[in-house]
Amino acid sequence: MKKVGVAILGLGVVGGGTYKILTEKKEYFKTTQGLDVTVENVLEKNIDRATALGIDKSIVATNIEEVVSNSNVDIVIEVIGGVEPAKTFVMKALMSGKTVVTSNKELFAKHWSELEEEAKKMRVGLFFEASCVGGVPIIRTLQEGMQANKILSIKGIINGTTNYILTKMSLEGSSYEEALKEAQRLGYAEFNPTADVEGFDATYKLSILSSLAFNAKVDIENVYREGITSITKEDIACGKELGYTLKLLGIGKNSENGIEVRVHPTFIPNSNPLATVNDSFNAVHLVGDSVGEIMLYGRGAGALPTGSAIVSDVIFAAKHHEYYYAAFENSSKGNKSTKFVSDFVSQYFIRMTVKDEAGVLSKYSGIFAKYNVSIKEAKQIAGVEGKVSTIIITHACKESALRKAIEKIEELEIVYSVDSVIRLED
Amino acid sequence: MKKVGVAILGLGVVGGGTYKILTEKKEYFKTTQGLDVTVENVLEKNIDRATALGIDKSIVATNIEEVVSNSNVDIVIEVIGGVEPAKTFVMKALMSGKTVVTSNKELFAKHWSELEEEAKKMRVGLFFEASCVGGVPIIRTLQEGMQANKILSIKGIINGTTNYILTKMSLEGSSYEEALKEAQRLGYAEFNPTADVEGFDATYKLSILSSLAFNAKVDIENVYREGITSITKEDIACGKELGYTLKLLGIGKNSENGIEVRVHPTFIPNSNPLATVNDSFNAVHLVGDSVGEIMLYGRGAGALPTGSAIVSDVIFAAKHHEYYYAAFENSSKGNKSTKFVSDFVSQYFIRMTVKDEAGVLSKYSGIFAKYNVSIKEAKQIAGVEGKVSTIIITHACKESALRKAIEKIEELEIVYSVDSVIRLED
Repeated sequence: MKKVGVAILGLGVVGGGTYKILTEKKEYFKTTQGLDVTVENVLEKNIDRATALGIDKSIVATNIEEVVSNSNVDIVIEVIGGVEPAKTFVMKALMSGKTVVTSNKELFAKHWSELEEEAKKMRVGLFFEASCVGGVPIIRTLQEGMQANKILSIKGIINGTTNYILTKMSLEGSSYEEALKEAQRLGYAEFNPTADVEGFDATYKLSILSSLAFNAKVDIENVYREGITSITKEDIACGKELGYTLKLLGIGKNSENGIEVRVHPTFIPNSNPLATVNDSFNAVHLVGDSVGEIMLYGRGAGALPTGSAIVSDVIFAAKHHEYYYAAFENSSKGNKSTKFVSDFVSQYFIRMTVKDEAGVLSKYSGIFAKYNVSIKEAKQIAGVEGKVSTIIITHACKESALRKAIEKIEELEIVYSVDSVIRLED
Repeated sequence: MKKVGVAILGLGVVGGGTYKILTEKKEYFKTTQGLDVTVENVLEKNIDRATALGIDKSIVATNIEEVVSNSNVDIVIEVIGGVEPAKTFVMKALMSGKTVVTSNKELFAKHWSELEEEAKKMRVGLFFEASCVGGVPIIRTLQEGMQANKILSIKGIINGTTNYILTKMSLEGSSYEEALKEAQRLGYAEFNPTADVEGFDATYKLSILSSLAFNAKVDIENVYREGITSITKEDIACGKELGYTLKLLGIGKNSENGIEVRVHPTFIPNSNPLATVNDSFNAVHLVGDSVGEIMLYGRGAGALPTGSAIVSDVIFAAKHHEYYYAAFENSSKGNKSTKFVSDFVSQYFIRMTVKDEAGVLSKYSGIFAKYNVSIKEAKQIAGVEGKVSTIIITHACKESALRKAIEKIEELEIVYSVDSVIRLED
């Protein structure tokens, strides 16, 4: 039976879950995979964490050199997170001829090319299923299940924290602040929630996923990013009334005009399969030119779901050793020649407060028309003291045109305020 | 660049789609996969089909010997369907050292072991992603994405024809006969719809999927099967009123008691993610002990979606040639020792017509109690001429107990008829 030695760098939530799966299922992997997988080393400064997991002190390394010079270690699992020291450790592992499995989206989104180059040079593997959408095998699907397709679009709920917050705001009418507090209480959001609520986490993931989907390196700088901090319960309630659900989506589109990648709050019709993906669940919807629509749904985070993805990579790497780096070698090709669309086309949901008098609609609709923004639906919502809330849904138009129109509309004497401009996808 | 020669046996809908993808994307596969894939042979008696696809006559073979003796052919794609002559052709291809990719669920469900044995002996590959759920990469997910999990359950809408019919009955209130006729008109159902509506097609697929999920060969004889032909629009309407949607589900469960596999019409709550999978779409919901819930959704049939799965297998086979048969070698293990649960536990939806008089509930509920069938909900629906329809939803109980109770209830003088007994899952 083939023996596989692994080392785990970092015994946080995901590292602990990974250790648990690898040790508790040692016999299971022998019978189902024909592999004898052993944790040969863990690297963790906090010895209590190791002890709490029942790890023998003899395998706890105190520095990375110990791990990369251990000839029993074939595969190094990096679950430290963040750029440093993770990057140094991963590079040392690759340079020592170890295959690397990582859950580190930030590291990967920022330094993919450098890591890939080293892995290729050393002819070792570099796997990152766990970096995107936790236990959902979206990377394996893109790499090993969708090869026959040119992927036309990818749309995903790829951050569980924001999905929890938006679900709570939608189903319980909570404010953003209330929902965030509850998410923090439950451990779904960090004390400093910026990475999640401002869309950075989703941007890392979308950068990785759209690179694979479109066979072109999509850097995080190419991704338009907008978080959910300015979303109000009024926005969500008004959208609901018109049959739309608000989600923080990662959207990638690949057309003749180029590649378009963006992370922002988005209204989608309730009939869209992504609309019913609630709480901390994640989902990714793909359209391929052969397969049509595909959606994958599951847990985007957590010790065991993310551990499931890491262990899947370990087994995949151990079984397909010929194939170590070929999985991603095409994704960094043609970076310089890739065209990106910045002035994208979208539908919009606009909420504004206007004077309650005759002729208001004709005034703002005249401005929209001037900028070629066509109105699909306009709805007035009862107001007070001579002010009314108005919701407008536009047909697809260029973002730049919409912004110019909004500027002019804000100058109108009959308009008190443009309260929200939120993109909308079918 | 690695050259890969393929032959296609059969140019029906799926064969045509496969040919189209392989030829139109020849250059795309060179750049994205580093593979030069060429269709070296097609086997098709109807020369018009070949001509319609623009296939040069020089590559149209007239018998299987021509194909299997062609040294340029590495991979044989079988898309004929049915057991013979497909089985003979596939065996000849394997015996000649060709890897086989097939979409043939019936052949695979009935003769897996024999085919597997030959593939192992010859050290060639046998791939069957396209046999289940069309373009949805469910087999790749089970094999290459869920290795860290013991799969606890699999529940799927794995037949598009019946899902189309049930969706039409549900959304438009059609009768079974009307919905079937419409499905036939649109090409979703065959002139003889038995294989679909009686659940045979779903049984083949569930046999394959649960074998992989549970690492134990599940033969079609192990699958309990019940079709949708006796479902009425009244059943669907009554279920709807209580918040349930009716689907033909393939259900596999793996517990300490053994493996339980069944295909039958099933009510599920509207909140279940499978409830919104409509028309001819398919979806498979898995629960793994590490990953938790996962769902995959997409097109279960059609020329290009199924072609997408076949071409994915071709590319996977060409890239992972070390790995040809290991993908399924564990699935036929331990067949004799596998325990199957036949007297399964389920919730039930019961619709019956009873006398409109006092004390009816106490009479039938007494019988249910006697057989340890506990009632979760009972609802009377307005009737005429002294008769009323009653809907009962039970808590989980053993099928045998439920059947005995129903027998006794049918004998009650106050019961005119037990109209439907339909299983219900949460």
